[in-house]
Amino acid sequence: MKKFIPLFLFAFLGFPIAAHAQTAVTAESVLQSVDMAWVMVAAFLVFFMHAGFAMVEAGFTRSKNALNILMKNFMTMSIAAVLYFIVGYGIMFGTSGNGIIGIDSFLLSGQEDQIGFFVFQAVFAATCATIISGAVAERIKLGSYLLLTVVMTGFIYPVVGHWVWGGGWLAELGFVDFAGSTVVHLTGALGAIVTVMFLGPRLGKYSGKKVNVIPGHNIPLGALGVFILWFGWFGFNGGSTLAADPSLVPTVIATTLLSASAGIISSAFYSYAKFRRIDASLTLNGALAGLVGITAGTANVSLFGALMIGLVAGIILVEAVQFLDRIARIDDPVGAIAVHGICGIWGTLAVGFFSVEGGLLYGDGIGLLGIQTVGILSVIAWTMLTTAVVVFIIKSTVGIRVTRQEEISGLDFAEHGSQAYETSRGIFNENINPRVDGDFGVGLLHRLDKLNSDPKSKTPPKTNTAQ
Amino acid sequence: MKKFIPLFLFAFLGFPIAAHAQTAVTAESVLQSVDMAWVMVAAFLVFFMHAGFAMVEAGFTRSKNALNILMKNFMTMSIAAVLYFIVGYGIMFGTSGNGIIGIDSFLLSGQEDQIGFFVFQAVFAATCATIISGAVAERIKLGSYLLLTVVMTGFIYPVVGHWVWGGGWLAELGFVDFAGSTVVHLTGALGAIVTVMFLGPRLGKYSGKKVNVIPGHNIPLGALGVFILWFGWFGFNGGSTLAADPSLVPTVIATTLLSASAGIISSAFYSYAKFRRIDASLTLNGALAGLVGITAGTANVSLFGALMIGLVAGIILVEAVQFLDRIARIDDPVGAIAVHGICGIWGTLAVGFFSVEGGLLYGDGIGLLGIQTVGILSVIAWTMLTTAVVVFIIKSTVGIRVTRQEEISGLDFAEHGSQAYETSRGIFNENINPRVDGDFGVGLLHRLDKLNSDPKSKTPPKTNTAQ
Amino acid sequence: MKKFIPLFLFAFLGFPIAAHAQTAVTAESVLQSVDMAWVMVAAFLVFFMHAGFAMVEAGFTRSKNALNILMKNFMTMSIAAVLYFIVGYGIMFGTSGNGIIGIDSFLLSGQEDQIGFFVFQAVFAATCATIISGAVAERIKLGSYLLLTVVMTGFIYPVVGHWVWGGGWLAELGFVDFAGSTVVHLTGALGAIVTVMFLGPRLGKYSGKKVNVIPGHNIPLGALGVFILWFGWFGFNGGSTLAADPSLVPTVIATTLLSASAGIISSAFYSYAKFRRIDASLTLNGALAGLVGITAGTANVSLFGALMIGLVAGIILVEAVQFLDRIARIDDPVGAIAVHGICGIWGTLAVGFFSVEGGLLYGDGIGLLGIQTVGILSVIAWTMLTTAVVVFIIKSTVGIRVTRQEEISGLDFAEHGSQAYETSRGIFNENINPRVDGDFGVGLLHRLDKLNSDPKSKTPPKTNTAQ
Repeated sequence: MKKFIPLFLFAFLGFPIAAHAQTAVTAESVLQSVDMAWVMVAAFLVFFMHAGFAMVEAGFTRSKNALNILMKNFMTMSIAAVLYFIVGYGIMFGTSGNGIIGIDSFLLSGQEDQIGFFVFQAVFAATCATIISGAVAERIKLGSYLLLTVVMTGFIYPVVGHWVWGGGWLAELGFVDFAGSTVVHLTGALGAIVTVMFLGPRLGKYSGKKVNVIPGHNIPLGALGVFILWFGWFGFNGGSTLAADPSLVPTVIATTLLSASAGIISSAFYSYAKFRRIDASLTLNGALAGLVGITAGTANVSLFGALMIGLVAGIILVEAVQFLDRIARIDDPVGAIAVHGICGIWGTLAVGFFSVEGGLLYGDGIGLLGIQTVGILSVIAWTMLTTAVVVFIIKSTVGIRVTRQEEISGLDFAEHGSQAYETSRGIFNENINPRVDGDFGVGLLHRLDKLNSDPKSKTPPKTNTAQ
Repeated sequence: MKKFIPLFLFAFLGFPIAAHAQTAVTAESVLQSVDMAWVMVAAFLVFFMHAGFAMVEAGFTRSKNALNILMKNFMTMSIAAVLYFIVGYGIMFGTSGNGIIGIDSFLLSGQEDQIGFFVFQAVFAATCATIISGAVAERIKLGSYLLLTVVMTGFIYPVVGHWVWGGGWLAELGFVDFAGSTVVHLTGALGAIVTVMFLGPRLGKYSGKKVNVIPGHNIPLGALGVFILWFGWFGFNGGSTLAADPSLVPTVIATTLLSASAGIISSAFYSYAKFRRIDASLTLNGALAGLVGITAGTANVSLFGALMIGLVAGIILVEAVQFLDRIARIDDPVGAIAVHGICGIWGTLAVGFFSVEGGLLYGDGIGLLGIQTVGILSVIAWTMLTTAVVVFIIKSTVGIRVTRQEEISGLDFAEHGSQAYETSRGIFNENINPRVDGDFGVGLLHRLDKLNSDPKSKTPPKTNTAQ
Repeated sequence: MKKFIPLFLFAFLGFPIAAHAQTAVTAESVLQSVDMAWVMVAAFLVFFMHAGFAMVEAGFTRSKNALNILMKNFMTMSIAAVLYFIVGYGIMFGTSGNGIIGIDSFLLSGQEDQIGFFVFQAVFAATCATIISGAVAERIKLGSYLLLTVVMTGFIYPVVGHWVWGGGWLAELGFVDFAGSTVVHLTGALGAIVTVMFLGPRLGKYSGKKVNVIPGHNIPLGALGVFILWFGWFGFNGGSTLAADPSLVPTVIATTLLSASAGIISSAFYSYAKFRRIDASLTLNGALAGLVGITAGTANVSLFGALMIGLVAGIILVEAVQFLDRIARIDDPVGAIAVHGICGIWGTLAVGFFSVEGGLLYGDGIGLLGIQTVGILSVIAWTMLTTAVVVFIIKSTVGIRVTRQEEISGLDFAEHGSQAYETSRGIFNENINPRVDGDFGVGLLHRLDKLNSDPKSKTPPKTNTAQ
């Protein structure tokens, strides 16, 4: 009970010696501490990526849906943490089971000594699920999205993770995905593209042959999000060593840094070559493309290989965004499918080319490349199938899309009875009696209640709070 | 003098071996390094929480006061660091003294080997003090707030800290507050509520029986702030182990993650049940409620217990916000008193229920619960009394509230002669000769000087820089 | 190839024991892991400072140039990482060479075991270069800026770094610059001031004798940037120990915290004394002034000395900003030259006063002060000369400044064919068919193409997307 009072043994070293649980202090026990601390810090960084996702998604979409995006991001992390605790971790890392699925360790029972590893894996699960939130933004029903997140983090993702990291059949096959280009990013993107196919594009995105661009409302916020994602990615890749291994971690960090840098450079200059402008959105996404691209091989490729992977990722990103947006007509407001899906495939295949052990470019033949392909195809099959079943069920029962009216007035009103920003009139003309509305939403609820009961007023409120 | 030049001993391990101060390398000495590094990184995270506080407070208040909020946040950290160095640390952790207060180690004298521990504690002190800044926002005089911060970080908070963490009487009693639900969060909230009672509500908040909601100007910024606080909280709770203890830290991180997640889920669904909408502000605060709620017992409760604590915290949060805002009519622009105070009480009591050692639910009776209650009540008494005395003195001498005119035109003009944002006209109609005003404030000072000397013009300036 | 599958040795310690590369576990090997982990985490923090730079620069300039600023920041990090890998690291830390310059280890060849150290140094190089981006904002051509960045990170900065940290002649002399007040900050600021002298001030900054203030468009974003910089600086200074040394790191963190705090306090109160207002911009920059000021001596001065250094830095900052802006008429939109240059000089000289080993105030005479001065002067000479040559060449060939028209309409249109924010009309009047323009820029490209080919329409587009 007095564990919280540190034993102050005053040393000459500038720091109190705190009490550790009763273990003899040996080099092995200290290494335990080091590795645990390393993975914990990495987990914090991966957690913080969710602030990055939130800022990217909010910044690249319209302000009338900002609160909704933020709610999706916070609730994805929350649901993921809980679902992964209850069932996801067991499916992914259960000690019993087979090459397909784990069948014990639910609620961490029997693996109480893996709490730290659980935390690290839980924030990964949330990352996979939250990739979907950007692609389905601005028209999905929040409740339906949350239902999908439950199944994603509790079942679909953990099965993939079991195949690759939980000792499952893909691991047995020799599939290499060090930190998750396939397990996390491709899986998330597949969930996204299936959901988007059921959901349809946003109103006004496509009118006949014309492809309209719907601008994001705050690109600086999106840019901050990209910086946060990149920052967190050092933990995403670095922590996947599961140890503070001086022969491995520096390589992982360096390949991550160089691939992201190369992705920016190539997407910037490639967009310049194509459009005669360095496109800001594509360049920002180029960083993410490079990061997703290195995530599979971050521990297996050379620094020069990392540069190559990033350069190619940036080009792929520009082409993929154009293709999905204009040819395939998949409306993805933030380019998540291109970044996490197409570049996730690239990153996984790149291992087959650039891995210093087994890569084609090192004269080891196409064996590894073949294994990587098998992994990709099986994950595509599994994830698209299961997601399609789940989304179909949700669509047939509660529906997945908001009404046309809700979409036009904005999900912040429809789902949350509020708005993200003061109106300009609010900024410039504050008086003693502020509007009866605002961030607690109760005032607006009165107004929306009136709207709902009055069949004539199916238009957004006309006051200065209207969006 | 050449300490900064590392000795480059090239090893095969991927990293230069830097020179350590002359100590033999043993398992114990390496453990020293590990524990120190862990607590330092945790301190960085707690520091970064202050960016979170700043973004939450700015986002949930009006733009005309944004600069003022930011100044309060930066200066709280600065004043806290200095005051805690000069006197606060000694009161809290002085080696001489008694169960009430420490009386030496001022300016760290005699504890020069505790510099790292000092840093960690200093950012905690700043956290306690900055809780007040959100509650008193938009109408407190900056100078008066700073005076209160001086006393808070130099005296009021350190005394509480001494009782609980500095070997004082509450520690002797067996009071459990691992990372500060009471020491930091409740203490800060008590300072807040007392100051708010002296300060009064914002103009326009209450008109007769009506309770108006004053909307925040940028909820996405506030959401980013919540993410940053959550991220930093892993250091806040994790670092409180004061050691990279593999038998303790993972549990602390996991309970922190799960409680925050549960807080979001319960506040979201509880607000949905009450208001038929998932309220964005309440959900965001639900994360903080879960975090405050777990801070006392983060090392002492099970993972399932953490989920329970968070679920309850989310519900308490929704009710507390409504109660304080509408029934008690305590105007708290960001809900700080509900989050840090009411949920701080809950978190402290929760230990009496859920602690695996001594908790009521584990069949150990109400002994611990009683001790927790004694701690809460004594901290309430101490903090409210001392804060009331200090605020009364300040109010009677220099005053604590800005004038009505200043409050209407906004504290950014009143205190800082500037504004936080370009006006829309500034954005859309830039010409070669920009307005003579802006972020250095000199131009506006001219205008305000004119205002001050001209009795007729007691209205905000009418140009496009007016807010 | 199976390195990514951890060996699960279940211990009672709460964390899986992951496989390390085949090294015997000794206290020395574990210390390797600790030191590596410490420097890696520090490198992440220094990387994240670039989000801080981006937010500060975007927040303190006009919204019509926000995308451009962000692109400069992302591309600086990318180019720096790649250039430093190819040539910069070798020049700075090549094992062959002389006191002036290293001449091997390009592409890290021969130093493959220094990958971690390379990463840490690479993000430092990027930090030096990015200091320039704020000072030249709103009128430099992006391509010209990128060319300068190439030379800065590939050559100019590494030479300075070699003199001080790479075993070069300044190190031999006994010059003390623990984390880079001169190597990083002064060097960057010198590059900035030379470029600004070639570039000229922004249109409208100076009209005859009058000095106009051009307001930043989002000070809260800038404030967030300052918080991020301060957070990252703990890694910038803390990681420069290159080891988790408990006798050194806590001191470094404490002096960093106290100097930044003192800088805020003194700039706030000094601006109050001068202008009768606590100026928000100056106070925010005061934090950075204190941080730059301590960066040279962070390991060498006492805590009280750190307070003094910060207090003086804050005052110097206020005076330097006024001097550069109004007397020298150097248009520096974010005050980078004052913060990183003038305070960089102060920080370096301060070592000569406050260093506990050799400082004037400790009775060790002016020897160290003299050495510091020699270092400052030589870096000034080298950097200003080389930068002037490079900028002159760029200016004479491709030019360095955008056209008058581009500057008026904003670099976001000129360089990126897009804008950073939804227009207010976009926010308040969304309809089913959004404007054919936006964040992918293609639509606006059509419009700009028309502009370019139509000599009559040399004005910004008049639609609601026009800025």
